[in-house]
Amino acid sequence: MPLPRAVVVLTGSELVRGDKADANGAFLGRELTRLGLEPARILLVGDDPAELERAIREALEAEICILSGGLGPTHDDRTVETLARAAGRELVVDETLEREIEAISRGVAERLGFPYADFAAGVHKQASLPEGGTALGLAGTAPAVLLERDGSLAVALPGPPNELRRLWPRVLESATLQRVLAGVEPPTHHVLRFFGVSESAVARTLEVEGGEGDGLDLTVCAHDLEIRVDLLQRPGSEERTARVAAALRERFGTELFAEDERPVAELVLDRCRSLGLTLATAESCTGGLVGVRLTDVAGASDVYVGGVVAYSNQVKAGGLGVPPDVLARHGAVSAEAAAAMARGARAKLGADVAVAVTGIAGPGGATPEKPVGLVYISVESPDGDSADRVVLPGDREAVRTRAAALALHTLRRLLTRPATHAHELAE
Amino acid sequence: MPLPRAVVVLTGSELVRGDKADANGAFLGRELTRLGLEPARILLVGDDPAELERAIREALEAEICILSGGLGPTHDDRTVETLARAAGRELVVDETLEREIEAISRGVAERLGFPYADFAAGVHKQASLPEGGTALGLAGTAPAVLLERDGSLAVALPGPPNELRRLWPRVLESATLQRVLAGVEPPTHHVLRFFGVSESAVARTLEVEGGEGDGLDLTVCAHDLEIRVDLLQRPGSEERTARVAAALRERFGTELFAEDERPVAELVLDRCRSLGLTLATAESCTGGLVGVRLTDVAGASDVYVGGVVAYSNQVKAGGLGVPPDVLARHGAVSAEAAAAMARGARAKLGADVAVAVTGIAGPGGATPEKPVGLVYISVESPDGDSADRVVLPGDREAVRTRAAALALHTLRRLLTRPATHAHELAE
Repeated sequence: MPLPRAVVVLTGSELVRGDKADANGAFLGRELTRLGLEPARILLVGDDPAELERAIREALEAEICILSGGLGPTHDDRTVETLARAAGRELVVDETLEREIEAISRGVAERLGFPYADFAAGVHKQASLPEGGTALGLAGTAPAVLLERDGSLAVALPGPPNELRRLWPRVLESATLQRVLAGVEPPTHHVLRFFGVSESAVARTLEVEGGEGDGLDLTVCAHDLEIRVDLLQRPGSEERTARVAAALRERFGTELFAEDERPVAELVLDRCRSLGLTLATAESCTGGLVGVRLTDVAGASDVYVGGVVAYSNQVKAGGLGVPPDVLARHGAVSAEAAAAMARGARAKLGADVAVAVTGIAGPGGATPEKPVGLVYISVESPDGDSADRVVLPGDREAVRTRAAALALHTLRRLLTRPATHAHELAE
Repeated sequence: MPLPRAVVVLTGSELVRGDKADANGAFLGRELTRLGLEPARILLVGDDPAELERAIREALEAEICILSGGLGPTHDDRTVETLARAAGRELVVDETLEREIEAISRGVAERLGFPYADFAAGVHKQASLPEGGTALGLAGTAPAVLLERDGSLAVALPGPPNELRRLWPRVLESATLQRVLAGVEPPTHHVLRFFGVSESAVARTLEVEGGEGDGLDLTVCAHDLEIRVDLLQRPGSEERTARVAAALRERFGTELFAEDERPVAELVLDRCRSLGLTLATAESCTGGLVGVRLTDVAGASDVYVGGVVAYSNQVKAGGLGVPPDVLARHGAVSAEAAAAMARGARAKLGADVAVAVTGIAGPGGATPEKPVGLVYISVESPDGDSADRVVLPGDREAVRTRAAALALHTLRRLLTRPATHAHELAE
């Protein structure tokens, strides 16, 4: 049986003009894939009424059509009215919904000190649904809308990523989606993540093992210094998948660091937690990004005590106790400065483990001996230290995100290396 | 004259499955808009041959069709052969190109220690172009391809963003693009950015002024507590555009904070620079994000000295000198703690101005009196202080990014408020 076709349409002139990067396509693609569907296409389209209608008409030909954006109260929010027109339905005001949206809008008007009259037209607009459609819940004042037609499903979701994600479970629970998915067996998803191998070496191993096909889909992706292999195993391809995964594990056993989705920051926090260690950061060129990655993880506070962003030499000396002598002799971007920063963070913030990053993110600040992308990492822990020196490719943003990733991987490796002392004692 | 239609197709199963976020769509959208085109659609499609061919056939209906990805040497790189088929052209080996790719591949083979025979089939494939097409230059071993048909233009570019960006200027220089663009006058782009107004209030003003149309495109976007209005003015709509912009400036004069693209962090840094002030941060719930935003801006180091990520109470007390008494009586999430953090950062890091953020990002940590999203901001400066208390909606990520945005806007407002003292003296 061929899989139901799923099409995603993301609306907003800011998306096609590149004023704003889309954040919903990848989320919806992952979700649809997880359900056992192959997202046929993800389409970004502007607010031009003709282009929008054309896109929605095409998308309605698929069994599952997911729209995002254009649910707001303003004139250029046209998703629901266009969906109604493309589906041949009238727009009808849902009065219960209107009262609900009105109550919220009155609260907002009062808080901001605007007259409610400013909001009334928007409320009426947002309470209008295609005939036969149902509201799946509100994001602010915008309802998500579900519309069933001839066994197919169309859903309109809000554009702001956090609102879309909050309302997505309502789509999953809907009886219509359940019916469309009847008979679709979700694939099994395996992920293998490597640090310290080249993408072509992984690709070559996959090729030797016969590549994809026969119910096994493979993707290889390089991101933030990780090489990630996704194996999507359809029913019947269990043996092939197991063989390919085993070959990767054997060939790159040392570099394989995860077979799940947990970000490296979470792996670091989990490892610290199980070892009973607290953690601190000392950052220069990354400006706080290692701290942000760690605190992206809910519950980081039982491990991560905090850090110092030592952007100026004055803060490196005053905030972290880096000896002025080290800065004068070796410079702020040096192995010696990184080591002193880690030592200082550990001592001053009272943490068991500390990681330090210093480097040249560019575009300015480089010298013949110290090019843009030069980064030093230093980790100090009760069980020993670790240091790294690399020259990372890319622009300022790329250098900073890769330097933060490298800091976390250096931490992870130090915290997960075989406990040689314990081992020797046991022997 | 209607504008030439431009369509972008980005290929790769990893994109539609959401294993990897696309980075080329926004770049190409910005470039096409800058040239005076409205990108009609940006389409992400997987490696499935039927879906890919369907997408390319549709895209070829536009005057300008830009493809990215799928130029590699492996079996699932099908862009060029599909482009040829969809355009009704034969695939022809370009022998000069083949020799060029062969030379590169022999070098790679030698370096990696593989026999060249492994590469020969791939080289032949990559040197094959649609009849009448021209190579625009190589990205690794992959040529970018330009194909002209009946005055329309199709271009196939590599998927890796840095390679695409490197070859894009070749497209801009091509005589074919110049011909397609003849008579297209690039639009003028105005942006107005507001802080502290509601999206609906802005929308209402735009509506009163007649909305978009007649050569004026309007988009309203809410992001990180900003309301951003983009006015895209085509030739002939100068007066209308000026009238709409003037109406917004008049109605929301206090809330209008920028008419350019500089991120708020850059505005803060510029303002500090012109006042001769240095800046420090003290962050709890944002975990370093304010520091990251500031140091995203190249050249931040002459203003931003650094900061303390005071995630634990121990670091709030030890690293920032927040009196334990304040923490005990008011808690770490309180106006008093925020003020003490800002004061401590200013003193300990030796900066003129400091901003502090403390709050509850969730999902844990809330109490009946202190809900998820509660955030306190405090700014201390030589010219006075400023404090904010808000309850931000959204999940952990939304609360954190909005709290960082609020901290920067609180800084910006304090630094740009009318210098009342100087004014009074002058009177």
